[in-house]
Amino acid sequence: MIVKKIINNPDNIVSDTIEGFVKAYEDKIEKLPNSNVVIRKNMEKGKVSVIIGNGSGHEPACIGFVGENMLTANAYGGVFAAPSPDTLYDAIEASENGKGVCVLISNHAGDVINSKMAIDMADDDDILCKGVILYDDIASAPKGEEIERRGTAGTLFNYKITSSYAADGHDLEEVAKMAEKVRDNTRTLTVATVPGTSPITGYKMFEIADDEIEIGMGVHGEAAAHTMKIGTAEEIAKVMCKKLIEDKPYEKGDEVAVLVNGCGQTTYMELLIFYNEVEKILSEAGIKTYKPAIGNYITTQEMGGIALAFCKLDEEMKKQWSKTTDAPGFHI
Amino acid sequence: MIVKKIINNPDNIVSDTIEGFVKAYEDKIEKLPNSNVVIRKNMEKGKVSVIIGNGSGHEPACIGFVGENMLTANAYGGVFAAPSPDTLYDAIEASENGKGVCVLISNHAGDVINSKMAIDMADDDDILCKGVILYDDIASAPKGEEIERRGTAGTLFNYKITSSYAADGHDLEEVAKMAEKVRDNTRTLTVATVPGTSPITGYKMFEIADDEIEIGMGVHGEAAAHTMKIGTAEEIAKVMCKKLIEDKPYEKGDEVAVLVNGCGQTTYMELLIFYNEVEKILSEAGIKTYKPAIGNYITTQEMGGIALAFCKLDEEMKKQWSKTTDAPGFHI
Repeated sequence: MIVKKIINNPDNIVSDTIEGFVKAYEDKIEKLPNSNVVIRKNMEKGKVSVIIGNGSGHEPACIGFVGENMLTANAYGGVFAAPSPDTLYDAIEASENGKGVCVLISNHAGDVINSKMAIDMADDDDILCKGVILYDDIASAPKGEEIERRGTAGTLFNYKITSSYAADGHDLEEVAKMAEKVRDNTRTLTVATVPGTSPITGYKMFEIADDEIEIGMGVHGEAAAHTMKIGTAEEIAKVMCKKLIEDKPYEKGDEVAVLVNGCGQTTYMELLIFYNEVEKILSEAGIKTYKPAIGNYITTQEMGGIALAFCKLDEEMKKQWSKTTDAPGFHI
Repeated sequence: MIVKKIINNPDNIVSDTIEGFVKAYEDKIEKLPNSNVVIRKNMEKGKVSVIIGNGSGHEPACIGFVGENMLTANAYGGVFAAPSPDTLYDAIEASENGKGVCVLISNHAGDVINSKMAIDMADDDDILCKGVILYDDIASAPKGEEIERRGTAGTLFNYKITSSYAADGHDLEEVAKMAEKVRDNTRTLTVATVPGTSPITGYKMFEIADDEIEIGMGVHGEAAAHTMKIGTAEEIAKVMCKKLIEDKPYEKGDEVAVLVNGCGQTTYMELLIFYNEVEKILSEAGIKTYKPAIGNYITTQEMGGIALAFCKLDEEMKKQWSKTTDAPGFHI
């Protein structure tokens, strides 16, 4: 087993990553002195802040989404491990900017438990704070049990739209409602072609047969719902779009933002070819597309695959989705 | 041999990619009807245009660099193959906007021959046109023979700075001089950890031993200058920075933009860790860094590795490097 990663001591991965990130963007981003929290500089006063905590290893998620019209701060955990309640509390406390803090929580056990504890700590200290749990992965629980679903790549819509909405001056109740609305209009499904390697152990995180792909895999290699022989981009897009459209359901006349999220080693060329097929299918179904996001946003190390997500938009959501941001890891 | 890529018929890779790209960004980019040229919509009149032709397979390069304050157009060739003189001519003709066209040429035999032929065709049609050959890869020819060097990832500095400078209204002579200046201040070196797979053949493009990395590999797997056992990010950064600094040489008091370009499957986490080491080394050498570019800009499919490039900047170059752009594949 040889780790072919360009890293130093695996024990220092998190601190090395943060150090590099903060150096690169020191004009706009800083790290809290004693906590693995990355936070905006020069925040405008009197706005609701939006934060999230997450395990590292999914970069640019979510440190790369800290910026104007995006996240205020990111509590950064160990590799594939939720940040501690203390780290999350530090992010909440440092972000509080006069109108409270909306804590987005991607639905994974550790993230939920630790975020709730941090919110309780903030309540005790009279910091206005509200958590919203995000779930979008249709492969991880059946329709009707949406709240059991995992948070996956479609959470990106929330990082942008909800944060951008908060920057317009809405209060915490309104911001939390927007987070729920974005979540409820989002569905995601992931296809995996090859596994990623844990930077800690140096081992592949799971196995996929040479001629197969996995539909429905989670962001940490959680069991897929459906194994199929590798087909063309068109065939894969058809399978995935059908499941997503039926689940919500998305309907004729709807307008959706499409996320074609590379999981790591899948090339931008493939993402574009795949988007082309998705757009054709949506167009045939009478569903309009609006400003797609195509790129590596939420990765699982160098895993091969694509997470496809749709978010049905209204005019307010379109406005917030398209507002510019200086977050280093986001561009559409 | 199984191609684990999400594509359709390999014969249609280029057309499928362009179709997806143009659909995604149809508000600002279009394709010429009968030619594989991607070009800006709504160009401002009376400015020098800057274009390049290149083989596909390196996305987002260079289609993703078409946009405001970046390239006017991109002539898009087959996979790892230069576009034809006709395609390049089409790009020149369609870009001409009242003040002539600067054709950037990354130094590879096919690109040079075909670009020169296209420029000759443009001359015959009285289109004001000037080519500038770009070379930056210090591994491909020794110091003193810079013009024999390959064009690699450091050409990115030219796509941004020269194009942005052209958008300020400078004439073709001045724009070409800026292209030469950026080139002469740029040096690049690439480390490869694992090979990429050709989307046409489905085979690995080259081999690297399990415990080794290759310093000095070209963007198509051209022979590396130096094989070493895989070390830490710090060790790799030291080897690469030393070679780059000595070659130019970059000196105490210089200010450089740093490009940490992921070649494909190398994670953003690794790029940040590597940047952290590079910044330390430059800082110790008294060389200041300015707005680094960290991400996948010029890839070789899912090859693992990093291209490290420096570009020494003056105030004018800093201004142009930092100007915003809406090019889909570029953000710093």
